[in-house]
Amino acid sequence: MPSTRYVLPEGEIPTHWYNVAADLDSPPPPPLNPGTGAPIGPDELAPIFPMALIGQEVSTERWVPIPDEVRDAYRLWRPTPLHRAHRLEADLGTSCRIFYKYEGVSPAGSHKPNTAVPQAFYNREEGVTRIATETGAGQWGSSLALSCQLFGLECKVYMVRASFDAKPYRKTMIATWGGECVASPSPDTNAGRAILEQMPDTPGSLGIAISEAVEDAATRDDTKYSLGSVLNHVLLHQTVIGQEAKAQLAAADAEPDVVVGCVGGGSNFAGIAFPFVADIAAGRSIRLVAAEPAACPTLTRGHYGYDFGDTAKLAPLLPMHTLGHGFVPAGIHSGGLRYHGMAPLVSHMVHTGLVEARAYHQRECFAEGVRFARSEGIIPAPEPTHALRAVREEVERAAQEGVDRTILVNLCGHGNFDMSAYEDYLAGTMVDYELPEAELEVAAAELAELPTIGA
Amino acid sequence: MPSTRYVLPEGEIPTHWYNVAADLDSPPPPPLNPGTGAPIGPDELAPIFPMALIGQEVSTERWVPIPDEVRDAYRLWRPTPLHRAHRLEADLGTSCRIFYKYEGVSPAGSHKPNTAVPQAFYNREEGVTRIATETGAGQWGSSLALSCQLFGLECKVYMVRASFDAKPYRKTMIATWGGECVASPSPDTNAGRAILEQMPDTPGSLGIAISEAVEDAATRDDTKYSLGSVLNHVLLHQTVIGQEAKAQLAAADAEPDVVVGCVGGGSNFAGIAFPFVADIAAGRSIRLVAAEPAACPTLTRGHYGYDFGDTAKLAPLLPMHTLGHGFVPAGIHSGGLRYHGMAPLVSHMVHTGLVEARAYHQRECFAEGVRFARSEGIIPAPEPTHALRAVREEVERAAQEGVDRTILVNLCGHGNFDMSAYEDYLAGTMVDYELPEAELEVAAAELAELPTIGA
Repeated sequence: MPSTRYVLPEGEIPTHWYNVAADLDSPPPPPLNPGTGAPIGPDELAPIFPMALIGQEVSTERWVPIPDEVRDAYRLWRPTPLHRAHRLEADLGTSCRIFYKYEGVSPAGSHKPNTAVPQAFYNREEGVTRIATETGAGQWGSSLALSCQLFGLECKVYMVRASFDAKPYRKTMIATWGGECVASPSPDTNAGRAILEQMPDTPGSLGIAISEAVEDAATRDDTKYSLGSVLNHVLLHQTVIGQEAKAQLAAADAEPDVVVGCVGGGSNFAGIAFPFVADIAAGRSIRLVAAEPAACPTLTRGHYGYDFGDTAKLAPLLPMHTLGHGFVPAGIHSGGLRYHGMAPLVSHMVHTGLVEARAYHQRECFAEGVRFARSEGIIPAPEPTHALRAVREEVERAAQEGVDRTILVNLCGHGNFDMSAYEDYLAGTMVDYELPEAELEVAAAELAELPTIGA
Repeated sequence: MPSTRYVLPEGEIPTHWYNVAADLDSPPPPPLNPGTGAPIGPDELAPIFPMALIGQEVSTERWVPIPDEVRDAYRLWRPTPLHRAHRLEADLGTSCRIFYKYEGVSPAGSHKPNTAVPQAFYNREEGVTRIATETGAGQWGSSLALSCQLFGLECKVYMVRASFDAKPYRKTMIATWGGECVASPSPDTNAGRAILEQMPDTPGSLGIAISEAVEDAATRDDTKYSLGSVLNHVLLHQTVIGQEAKAQLAAADAEPDVVVGCVGGGSNFAGIAFPFVADIAAGRSIRLVAAEPAACPTLTRGHYGYDFGDTAKLAPLLPMHTLGHGFVPAGIHSGGLRYHGMAPLVSHMVHTGLVEARAYHQRECFAEGVRFARSEGIIPAPEPTHALRAVREEVERAAQEGVDRTILVNLCGHGNFDMSAYEDYLAGTMVDYELPEAELEVAAAELAELPTIGA
């Protein structure tokens, strides 16, 4: 049997992050101040982000150096392996070549520490001693807690109450890494107290948790805020994934025809796909495919316009595909994909045709997750089962066209903390959610009052 | 910062298992037929094990070739990384060098698939289509389910009811990999039905589950039995760990002075330590340290003699350190270390002085587990926190002696499925169990009726 697993020595951890902005024909539209409607300047972001990250947010330099201390922390688990999925190929009966990059080997079990580590580093460099953030299912909160611990910072995580109650193990992970995790809404902020007074039994939401974390950071001198996806600098940090994959594919004497990732806020997809934009710009023919849940179909059915990143309308207006800041996605198991908006860079690239988007229902995705577990061993997190569903579609399409393709997919995390979702699937009790057209009309009405892109 | 992580290309997966029996001055005593008291022959084991594994059980050849199909399956996660624990060293304030071999990167999260894979392979080679086994906390049952899936076999797991109820996620993992998992005692066997009739509410025990799995295998032509530790062939398969570690240490220009592993049945300790016995035989000075729970102190306080491997006295008499086949260990979180006996090879090496044994209470072990998580990132399973506790003792001993040593430890699995144990520790509610002397007297009385070693 030919080689199945490509590893790299730690000396080959990338030395720079790749900034896709340098290779786009047109830049994405700027974020706007929700009060004035004017493009937001760095000074307006300074109360909640360190200047180094604000600089990366607006940078158009192709290569951004990775600090040595960040690379040293990456060495705890990077480079991650690239696998040739021989057994999956056999199970699918395809002669396409499928490679998967596996980010689940990080201590937190996903790609999230790739940006949590540099965010903690840059905050410490600027004298910050404490970071506040929100988390939904807990992947991001635990990754930031780990990273704060590595750089000697305190970490406060506002975790959506429904998840806090349903997934107590993530709270324990955060505590094991020295972080503090509270259920949101919490009595620790004005925003939290106000909501608790009105709705003492609310399950919370990501929008509420963001409001709490931003207030925490804005009202304490020692504290900044941190976000785990969506923003340019977050996507930038994730490009170590695709850069390593390129080096590993070269060792396999392969070049991808299709690159696939799942999308919620956009960061793991950006991590695997953006580094190939440089090749596309150089004339190579590579399709980039983003897979999202049909229950939260931001890219495939959402509106492309300016919208708030949070429910409470505290965040800047971002140019993105959106289902409306008031949209509450159905309770699918892929908590990491339940976001009403999308990274502006990913949205811009879908808008300009550089990225294709697909939406899938969760049952067809879990079917591919189980297939993957039974062929390749690893049990995927629910989120990347969407990417695996897209791989299957690519394989079937290649068969119809009578061609063999090379497919690269990002397996962004393992499912060790998601076994209840597999139980739901295997028991036959899992439900698919079809988004009613009426909900999109609500979003359209919300967005009609906000600035439009290119206006 | 110097290199921290040593990886190997998949071509360097060992081609042979190392059989420590070839390098021992004296062989361990033979297992005995409980009825006749005579040494057990291969034919007596044939109804429950395939002949290839029986052959490995009694082999004295130093090197046993690893079949290509087994190496191909190992490639799904092997070679595993070796890490230099710079951050742990700094936290401990030591100038000793600490290396850890990380087996948690396997799909099941521990070292157990190293033997589950070849056991499934050899069974399939001999026409077996179904394997039955028992599992306590679920690490072994899930590893065997994965391996049976890879080789197209059915898998039936009898899981101790207390764990089945407390750890539903392991049952779901087994089902995701296509295995069947039932709570033991079950209505599926005579042994299970008899116990259920007497004690319908029993939490079960490993002894009962073994009886069920052995009965299942002995009464069905298509089925054999499989064990996840203790036996010689199981320990043999685990030696890929130590062999890889040797190659990786050579890349780090290091040789260990001390090799440390935790012991329950003995297999992960054997995996890391046995390959160094060849170096000891060649004159190198290396100490081998086995760390066990003070609540189940088989090696440090048990009797060295013949005893049954199971509670129901169905298994052969094994020459080992034992707390008595009737011993029920206290409910510590390290389910994988709650076994009354020990691998005969490990016991023999403790008896002859080749291996040192230490016992630790679980709170002091979890303190080292949290230290490890906060310095190296990975949250260890409860079992290897015993090994980390021994590492700390070695570091303190080196400081007292004014020397720097190189310490190699096996981090045999991650704690993703053990977060409730960390919650117990962090909440300050964890309890240590001191084994009363009276329990040892009960064991001594049991054993007085059985053959003695060397008699």
